[in-house]
Amino acid sequence: MFEFSLDGTAGGARAGTLTLPHGVVQTPCFMPVGTRGAVRGLHPDEVRGAGAQIILGNTYHLHLRPGEATVAALGGLHKFSTWDRPMLTDSGGFQVFSLSGMRKLDENGVDFVSHIDGSRHRLTPESSMEIQWALGADIAMAFDHRLPGQSSHDDARDAMERTLRWLERSRRRHEELAAGSPPRQTLWPIVQGGTHDDLRLASLEGILERGPWTGVAIGGLSVGETKPAMHHVLDVLSPQLPTDRPRYLMGVGFPDDLLEGIARGVDMFDCVAATRNGRHGSAWTADGKVQVRGAPLRLDEGPLDPECDCEGCTRFSRAYLRHLFVAEEQLGPRLVSIHNLRFLIRLAETARLRILDGTFDTWAAAWRQRYFAKGNAK
Amino acid sequence: MFEFSLDGTAGGARAGTLTLPHGVVQTPCFMPVGTRGAVRGLHPDEVRGAGAQIILGNTYHLHLRPGEATVAALGGLHKFSTWDRPMLTDSGGFQVFSLSGMRKLDENGVDFVSHIDGSRHRLTPESSMEIQWALGADIAMAFDHRLPGQSSHDDARDAMERTLRWLERSRRRHEELAAGSPPRQTLWPIVQGGTHDDLRLASLEGILERGPWTGVAIGGLSVGETKPAMHHVLDVLSPQLPTDRPRYLMGVGFPDDLLEGIARGVDMFDCVAATRNGRHGSAWTADGKVQVRGAPLRLDEGPLDPECDCEGCTRFSRAYLRHLFVAEEQLGPRLVSIHNLRFLIRLAETARLRILDGTFDTWAAAWRQRYFAKGNAK
Repeated sequence: MFEFSLDGTAGGARAGTLTLPHGVVQTPCFMPVGTRGAVRGLHPDEVRGAGAQIILGNTYHLHLRPGEATVAALGGLHKFSTWDRPMLTDSGGFQVFSLSGMRKLDENGVDFVSHIDGSRHRLTPESSMEIQWALGADIAMAFDHRLPGQSSHDDARDAMERTLRWLERSRRRHEELAAGSPPRQTLWPIVQGGTHDDLRLASLEGILERGPWTGVAIGGLSVGETKPAMHHVLDVLSPQLPTDRPRYLMGVGFPDDLLEGIARGVDMFDCVAATRNGRHGSAWTADGKVQVRGAPLRLDEGPLDPECDCEGCTRFSRAYLRHLFVAEEQLGPRLVSIHNLRFLIRLAETARLRILDGTFDTWAAAWRQRYFAKGNAK
Repeated sequence: MFEFSLDGTAGGARAGTLTLPHGVVQTPCFMPVGTRGAVRGLHPDEVRGAGAQIILGNTYHLHLRPGEATVAALGGLHKFSTWDRPMLTDSGGFQVFSLSGMRKLDENGVDFVSHIDGSRHRLTPESSMEIQWALGADIAMAFDHRLPGQSSHDDARDAMERTLRWLERSRRRHEELAAGSPPRQTLWPIVQGGTHDDLRLASLEGILERGPWTGVAIGGLSVGETKPAMHHVLDVLSPQLPTDRPRYLMGVGFPDDLLEGIARGVDMFDCVAATRNGRHGSAWTADGKVQVRGAPLRLDEGPLDPECDCEGCTRFSRAYLRHLFVAEEQLGPRLVSIHNLRFLIRLAETARLRILDGTFDTWAAAWRQRYFAKGNAK
């Protein structure tokens, strides 16, 4: 259980297989985000139909509503939400550290105020483990101290060192919770250190000293730093990461981020952009974005993306999807969310095939050229 | 085409079969309302999965967005929305007459102001026929003058007589539009006359004098009058309606309205209550309503309605549905909308079976007793 095997590599890019209690995940893979016990706006069968092998649940949101005790009483997050494939939960740290002005940090943990009702809560490495254990995902994440992307060296060092201390506490509590159970949840550490090479390497070194781990996550990216800075961090870390463990780049990404991450050895990704953009009518295609509300689509009988095999693209016209958005019919956001998920998941699927057949670099170069050619990728 | 055959009767209740260009409809039946080219919040496959044989489209809404010319250019409302079963469109009159203070009536038609952007529009019997012909439903409705349910005899007579004059104009224009085409749309008249027996009978007499028709609708009910008053109108009309034509009670109903209508010889119904209540978390069951947001459901692992065969009831727990509503996840309103549609459609299906096997009255009495027993039907 929790084993990872490398099926092939192409330069830095890797294809692997991760075995988890709820099933097998082929990497590279994109994980849709099920923020509040559901991938926003979607039915679990739609997420499965888009090809998702594993989804992410948000500890912060589920702790507030319905509460981990409720989820546990109902058999855990898998049973509660009827998602029977693998699942990962984040630690809650990312959301808590995004609550600027509504939280207070000390060495022991973070006090914060609920964005929903103003109630007071506290997250610590220990309570994050307890919540995640109650939720019952296959993979739990250590409680980390995440900073904005352009933080100073001093701030980033403080947070990185605290993250290591919190990692030890996370592990200790997780081991206590798991003691005596059959293996049903593993804990992954998170590399921090901002955009500072020395801190990133020290973070990774500190993590590996405290190992072994069944996987390693890279956090604190795609949080305000530039894209070249993000790529540089990946370039610095990649040679030092264990090759026999999956690598998860948290909160990333957009289609081109996926490609750049895969090229740099990342195996797993998650991001809300697919469903957020979908809700707002922005659809990814191999030629960049299509704005679904756009007037040019008014009489367009063609599919949103003629190369896509998703529900929306194989059945409905651009004109009808546009109408649904203009008329504020929920079916529109739903179909474009599914499309965007399918686009990212298929991108990872295709990358895997190209890694395995040894044509990844050529394929990736052609993909980039086409994606950016029309200037509408952003 | 447009033929109706009676398969059986039980007292006043009827079971029939209506043949339309896009398929066969077994009656009694409930028609979900596809206001803006989609049944609110739902995928056409979900509407089909709930057992809908025919849906309704709203001429007023589709005229404003995306406009009938757009729908016609895209192949008509069936192709546009990918709904391939029968469809009926209303005349637009109901919505226009609901725009109090935003419309002006004269003998020729109604000027009105769009609720969306304040733009000025005009509906006449002729333009209603033109819009409905462009939309291309199997059944078009005559343009009628609808009043509130408690209107005076004088007002109701004026509106009823105008409705008859408008019926002649509707029919003339519809015949012009249909001339030379293979039969693809039929036109149904609407009985008006408020809650006044003499006016209702005069309206029906005027309609039948102007026939033949392939079906007859009863309008102007469930618009503010009492339930006994509605039942009385049906009791007065029923013996005078042609037995060999389907009878459509417009804008009705709630579960008990369906039962009372069927008992009084109505064959077809439509109403937005199923999806509106569903969106707001109010679910129908044989024991009355369940409020899905209710605290008692927080830890309830059982199905929303243990007797229901819909998607939500066969897969998800009450606790999860409650969570979706509390967390404002769109999957909740979607699943409860589907449930309510399925509840009404199954009620009509069961009524048909009980009519055919001769046990309708006994079954209906037991149904009513159970539905109202807990006092939570309203």
